[in-house]
Amino acid sequence: MEIPKFKTLEIIQKSPNPSVFHILLNNPSLKNALSLDFFTEFPKALISLDQNPEVNVIILSGHGDHFCSGIDLNAFNTLMKSQSKDQGRVRERFRREIKGLQNAMTAIERCRKVVIAAIHGACIGGGIDLITACDIRYCTKNAFFCVKEVDLAITADLGTLQRLPGIVGYGNAVELALTARRFTGEEAKDFGLVSKVFESKSALDEGVYAVAEGIAMKSPLAVVGTKEVLLRSRDMSVDQGLDYAATWNSAMLPSADLTEAVSAQIQKRKPTFAKL
Amino acid sequence: MEIPKFKTLEIIQKSPNPSVFHILLNNPSLKNALSLDFFTEFPKALISLDQNPEVNVIILSGHGDHFCSGIDLNAFNTLMKSQSKDQGRVRERFRREIKGLQNAMTAIERCRKVVIAAIHGACIGGGIDLITACDIRYCTKNAFFCVKEVDLAITADLGTLQRLPGIVGYGNAVELALTARRFTGEEAKDFGLVSKVFESKSALDEGVYAVAEGIAMKSPLAVVGTKEVLLRSRDMSVDQGLDYAATWNSAMLPSADLTEAVSAQIQKRKPTFAKL
Amino acid sequence: MEIPKFKTLEIIQKSPNPSVFHILLNNPSLKNALSLDFFTEFPKALISLDQNPEVNVIILSGHGDHFCSGIDLNAFNTLMKSQSKDQGRVRERFRREIKGLQNAMTAIERCRKVVIAAIHGACIGGGIDLITACDIRYCTKNAFFCVKEVDLAITADLGTLQRLPGIVGYGNAVELALTARRFTGEEAKDFGLVSKVFESKSALDEGVYAVAEGIAMKSPLAVVGTKEVLLRSRDMSVDQGLDYAATWNSAMLPSADLTEAVSAQIQKRKPTFAKL
Amino acid sequence: MEIPKFKTLEIIQKSPNPSVFHILLNNPSLKNALSLDFFTEFPKALISLDQNPEVNVIILSGHGDHFCSGIDLNAFNTLMKSQSKDQGRVRERFRREIKGLQNAMTAIERCRKVVIAAIHGACIGGGIDLITACDIRYCTKNAFFCVKEVDLAITADLGTLQRLPGIVGYGNAVELALTARRFTGEEAKDFGLVSKVFESKSALDEGVYAVAEGIAMKSPLAVVGTKEVLLRSRDMSVDQGLDYAATWNSAMLPSADLTEAVSAQIQKRKPTFAKL
Amino acid sequence: MEIPKFKTLEIIQKSPNPSVFHILLNNPSLKNALSLDFFTEFPKALISLDQNPEVNVIILSGHGDHFCSGIDLNAFNTLMKSQSKDQGRVRERFRREIKGLQNAMTAIERCRKVVIAAIHGACIGGGIDLITACDIRYCTKNAFFCVKEVDLAITADLGTLQRLPGIVGYGNAVELALTARRFTGEEAKDFGLVSKVFESKSALDEGVYAVAEGIAMKSPLAVVGTKEVLLRSRDMSVDQGLDYAATWNSAMLPSADLTEAVSAQIQKRKPTFAKL
Amino acid sequence: MEIPKFKTLEIIQKSPNPSVFHILLNNPSLKNALSLDFFTEFPKALISLDQNPEVNVIILSGHGDHFCSGIDLNAFNTLMKSQSKDQGRVRERFRREIKGLQNAMTAIERCRKVVIAAIHGACIGGGIDLITACDIRYCTKNAFFCVKEVDLAITADLGTLQRLPGIVGYGNAVELALTARRFTGEEAKDFGLVSKVFESKSALDEGVYAVAEGIAMKSPLAVVGTKEVLLRSRDMSVDQGLDYAATWNSAMLPSADLTEAVSAQIQKRKPTFAKL
Repeated sequence: MEIPKFKTLEIIQKSPNPSVFHILLNNPSLKNALSLDFFTEFPKALISLDQNPEVNVIILSGHGDHFCSGIDLNAFNTLMKSQSKDQGRVRERFRREIKGLQNAMTAIERCRKVVIAAIHGACIGGGIDLITACDIRYCTKNAFFCVKEVDLAITADLGTLQRLPGIVGYGNAVELALTARRFTGEEAKDFGLVSKVFESKSALDEGVYAVAEGIAMKSPLAVVGTKEVLLRSRDMSVDQGLDYAATWNSAMLPSADLTEAVSAQIQKRKPTFAKL
Repeated sequence: MEIPKFKTLEIIQKSPNPSVFHILLNNPSLKNALSLDFFTEFPKALISLDQNPEVNVIILSGHGDHFCSGIDLNAFNTLMKSQSKDQGRVRERFRREIKGLQNAMTAIERCRKVVIAAIHGACIGGGIDLITACDIRYCTKNAFFCVKEVDLAITADLGTLQRLPGIVGYGNAVELALTARRFTGEEAKDFGLVSKVFESKSALDEGVYAVAEGIAMKSPLAVVGTKEVLLRSRDMSVDQGLDYAATWNSAMLPSADLTEAVSAQIQKRKPTFAKL
Repeated sequence: MEIPKFKTLEIIQKSPNPSVFHILLNNPSLKNALSLDFFTEFPKALISLDQNPEVNVIILSGHGDHFCSGIDLNAFNTLMKSQSKDQGRVRERFRREIKGLQNAMTAIERCRKVVIAAIHGACIGGGIDLITACDIRYCTKNAFFCVKEVDLAITADLGTLQRLPGIVGYGNAVELALTARRFTGEEAKDFGLVSKVFESKSALDEGVYAVAEGIAMKSPLAVVGTKEVLLRSRDMSVDQGLDYAATWNSAMLPSADLTEAVSAQIQKRKPTFAKL
Repeated sequence: MEIPKFKTLEIIQKSPNPSVFHILLNNPSLKNALSLDFFTEFPKALISLDQNPEVNVIILSGHGDHFCSGIDLNAFNTLMKSQSKDQGRVRERFRREIKGLQNAMTAIERCRKVVIAAIHGACIGGGIDLITACDIRYCTKNAFFCVKEVDLAITADLGTLQRLPGIVGYGNAVELALTARRFTGEEAKDFGLVSKVFESKSALDEGVYAVAEGIAMKSPLAVVGTKEVLLRSRDMSVDQGLDYAATWNSAMLPSADLTEAVSAQIQKRKPTFAKL
Repeated sequence: MEIPKFKTLEIIQKSPNPSVFHILLNNPSLKNALSLDFFTEFPKALISLDQNPEVNVIILSGHGDHFCSGIDLNAFNTLMKSQSKDQGRVRERFRREIKGLQNAMTAIERCRKVVIAAIHGACIGGGIDLITACDIRYCTKNAFFCVKEVDLAITADLGTLQRLPGIVGYGNAVELALTARRFTGEEAKDFGLVSKVFESKSALDEGVYAVAEGIAMKSPLAVVGTKEVLLRSRDMSVDQGLDYAATWNSAMLPSADLTEAVSAQIQKRKPTFAKL
Repeated sequence: MEIPKFKTLEIIQKSPNPSVFHILLNNPSLKNALSLDFFTEFPKALISLDQNPEVNVIILSGHGDHFCSGIDLNAFNTLMKSQSKDQGRVRERFRREIKGLQNAMTAIERCRKVVIAAIHGACIGGGIDLITACDIRYCTKNAFFCVKEVDLAITADLGTLQRLPGIVGYGNAVELALTARRFTGEEAKDFGLVSKVFESKSALDEGVYAVAEGIAMKSPLAVVGTKEVLLRSRDMSVDQGLDYAATWNSAMLPSADLTEAVSAQIQKRKPTFAKL
């Protein structure tokens, strides 16, 4: 399968493990601010990688000195411009446009393959919406984070207020969202927002590749199932989530992957799994 | 708007920022134990401050050496006294009275304005119910906390068992509630219960005023929206929360605050926002 | 009441406090791997201890050098063996069998008495399912943990994906489940998975007995109520949880335990409570 | 307890059974259109009757030729008038005002005592919001109903879209709300919106008094419990609702009412219950 | 598999289709009042029939002149008798006992096989709890129904208040539960409580056997799946229910039953399916 | 905007009201069986009509003698054919394919414009999935319906088991899904599945056009809002739904449509509204 080309994103495959792909936010002159084009291209990129059987794991990071400075002000101004005189119609359209932007973020959850955020430099506003929709997050020591929206007189509406509390706890999420204060990679680690802090950008890249390759070598079926059951269970009662997991596994097991994993363990070798 | 007077509370405005108000628990001889009067007066105080356009942020703290030692035993005894001979009627009334007390705590969530708890000394039993309903929490190094109810042979019923797990994680909440052990400000910080620990009462006061003023200078509309969307999303699925946030912003944006925030940023000056 | 005997479990009572009971996983030659017999015996053991008025608190730990190495591969193979030629019937049966295994884990939540996990050595795969269903968790410094399932090409289906996110945060849970990496007792403490790390197995035993005895000496009614209201509120909105707690206490209060607790406090003595 | 006086409502007690009270919408010249005063007075009336131990059942009907023609256009215009130049502030205030109006309708659900709607003539728009919040509904043959809002270019926001689907089925609710067509009492009966259709206003009055007196003579505790458990269970899973009902009855039973009901049944006499 | 024997139930197999089994309430001298023994035996009977591969469909009806007159007063009195002096302990035990009774009703939902209620004569109080947990209901013309609990000064707690609103609509359920009025089979049909009214007991028996045999000849896998997906979806959002159904079928399809059903349709013959 | 062309659908505009569009299932030789192409084309058609400002209301009906005979067996067979040898992968893909089909049905709910089903002749299996996702349903006297899946040894998975219970009541839905019996238009009306039964196909067409034009002449903003608030509230608690409706209207009101509706009413003329 061919890798599609985008204006606001670069997709590369340079990891030793050929099933680890890399999406780079590609607007470095604006600290990878998210333009309206990004919101169109990003879900397309994820759908393409999701359907591509060569892809097992996706790393998301930024070109240049920063991960992401949030939504581009031009994008924002365009959204705010109304073409109708009727306030009702203006706002009904505006609501749909916000839902369109949200959709680009939630595309990460709809993608079956694992998406890992590798964050360096600034991760601000829309950047936080983006990483909280990812499955795992790592950052450099010099990374800094900010739930910035309230300082732009906006109530954050692309996912931070929905996903951050489950990741860092409700109290921490409220404090970060109401003060819009900067916090460091170390704090992000303490909060549970990132899983590890690396000394440098190169250490981050290396470390994230190692994690990504580790996941890429596992059973794709089990990885996809773990992501999906976690996401579905998040919005259910524990009893409903348990029943869902049982139903899931009654479909997906036994599988060739299970046979291979058990054989490999007995033979003390690395298992190899078919593409998904 | 005039500031109302209360027996169990003192409301003052002494911050340099005139929109930061301060509610002090005012029963220092009993370590600010919560009397029945408190439960009547506290929601009234919050409604009054919520409706007062001069108020942007509310700080909640305690007079004297402690934040709050929990429900006053007299209050408790009064509640337990039954006026009917019929156990059914006694308990139906008792249930309503508990719901009345809960209502006083939840008044903090119904108040649109941000409520910040500044905790020093003891914060015990009903004190925990109180602070877990607040939006942000700070404490002194010498503060200590205790989910005390189980030691009084009571199942906590004013909010701790509902709100603490989302703030500190389910495991930590269970351990604290079942052991009723004391924990320090430092532990509270590790758990995510408080956002920062200050060296002294005066450092706490200064620090909390700084945070409060910071929030008070932000767009009141964005602050109110952030609080409300966080609270609403807490009890919904992520998808429902996203749709709610989009609908909210289609109402609240664009606003004069947004225009002002963007202008101020371009002009590199502090924005000033109208009252809410 | 007599203590029942089991093949895969040993139940003992050796704590100075006669109401603290101890369930030991008893398959040390296989690092306490969970056999199919375990899944039948464990819920029986819990029901028996729950109904036994002599029992207030249950400690769960493992014989030998490890807490639990997960599901026994033989158990797993048996489950995978199909007796029907029809895939539909095979899978319908398999789903029920998974639900049967889940049921053994959830038996901990259905048990009214507090269950405390004391973990040393390995706690892997099914071991994590087991401890996340417990009320409180403690471990030794040399304990290590691993959400192992994905490495066996399986989507975990016995509770980890449902309960771990609420305990350690959604982000940490995803990272642990997708990487299947080992983590130490110290990390488990940082995540909120365990409440304290002890230097040695003997320190763990001593420490957990102290906690267990502390809880065992509290009002059984309040302890049972705290466990139940926490569990029920976990799957409800905050408002529903508050109403539930009010209704609960309108039934359970006033109680002899409350009278005793208050008297003891006034008389500065330890309260003693009747069995439940 | 004295019966309070209101401008927009008349409260009377004329039933042979002294615990049946009657709230009459009292704006007959405007077909009992709901003014802003109504929305303030109605919840006060319900709170007063709820707290009055003399009251067991409340009948809601309209003076003059109609039950209710919906929200008064003046009320509506007042709500629409903005006092701020900032659209954000205007809409934040408007949202609170709608929630204030909703609150008046939901006051019927917060009232523990049963509220029965007796409908004759028109029941339109806000009238439907009102009756769907009532516990039981009866009407005359000449009554007619209309979910009118869409014809005023409004999305109904006072409860019809939330409560009607559960009463008449989702499909019927959609059809009525989207077409805004009139429907008769007979149709309302077929839909399950009313429980019986009476030939005339006097037959309605007589019939509703008979039902009301029947309920008024039952155990107030059981009636209140049935209303509350039904309402709570509506928004829960069946399992949660069952657990709630068990917890409720563990508080409310046994009661003097139960003893009296059983005695009366054995003695083949009518039971008499104490006030609530 | 042998059919177990019970005191309060008779299980027979007399239908021409050997996989239709019949549970008869067997306490005709008391109009099949439900004794404490019933609540122990009924779930055992259902588990036995569920596990018996000979059984596809279960009919539930009553010996003698009536279906069921509700809970036996002796059972009720036993439950009400307290063995402890402490009100707290009495009520905690009482709550568990109610949950035990509920469990017997919900056993119908846990049984994978379809349970059809065939109702003649009285169906009162606990009888309504019983039939609302069944999958389908039919009755005779002379059947009569009554949600009786409120007349015994009790809030119904065995399922009627949770399940009836979804079956007959919220408004009808409230009216029936608050008035405790009798209603006929014809009304039950109008409400959607029963699917058909038969002229006589023999016509009912014949008709229900025909329906039961019809279901018994269908694919057991599809019947079991339809029951389970309906029940699970009842307590979920539509989106969650759809995802659950897709996951279910990815496990259960293709099946031998599907192959057989399609072949039979092409060959215009009746399909025959293996036992489940 | 141009109307797109499809293989399996015909879109026409022949109503006197130019904003009423008509989608016809266009596979009459197979009684409008749903092919795989249909599932691709149908959501595209709805998105196109949703975005087309000329469209206010969409009618869905079938060419030829029947509305829809369900999923085409060829489509079904294609879905069942596996391209992988690994059962795990086969089923993971199958699950996604079912979700793809479901997505085509749910496209009706995602379409803001009202979709009215006009049913004549057969409406079977997938046809029921289709109409239960529509907003309103009408049929001819000779229409007949059948929840057929169980007779094909399948658990229905395209929406019937999720949506039908809310429309016809849980009991009726279970009976129809488990018996797979045919039911007539009259029964469908009694169940609340259709809103009216017409004597003939031409009467149906005429009647549905009249309803569609009636809705098409109403405020598009209010119609869209009513559909969305009903759908959102369906999956929320009543309190959440009320808050959602208040937030919605704080965005959408006041509107030009409201002004026009009020003016028209005062001037006793028909209002005219701008496109959406």
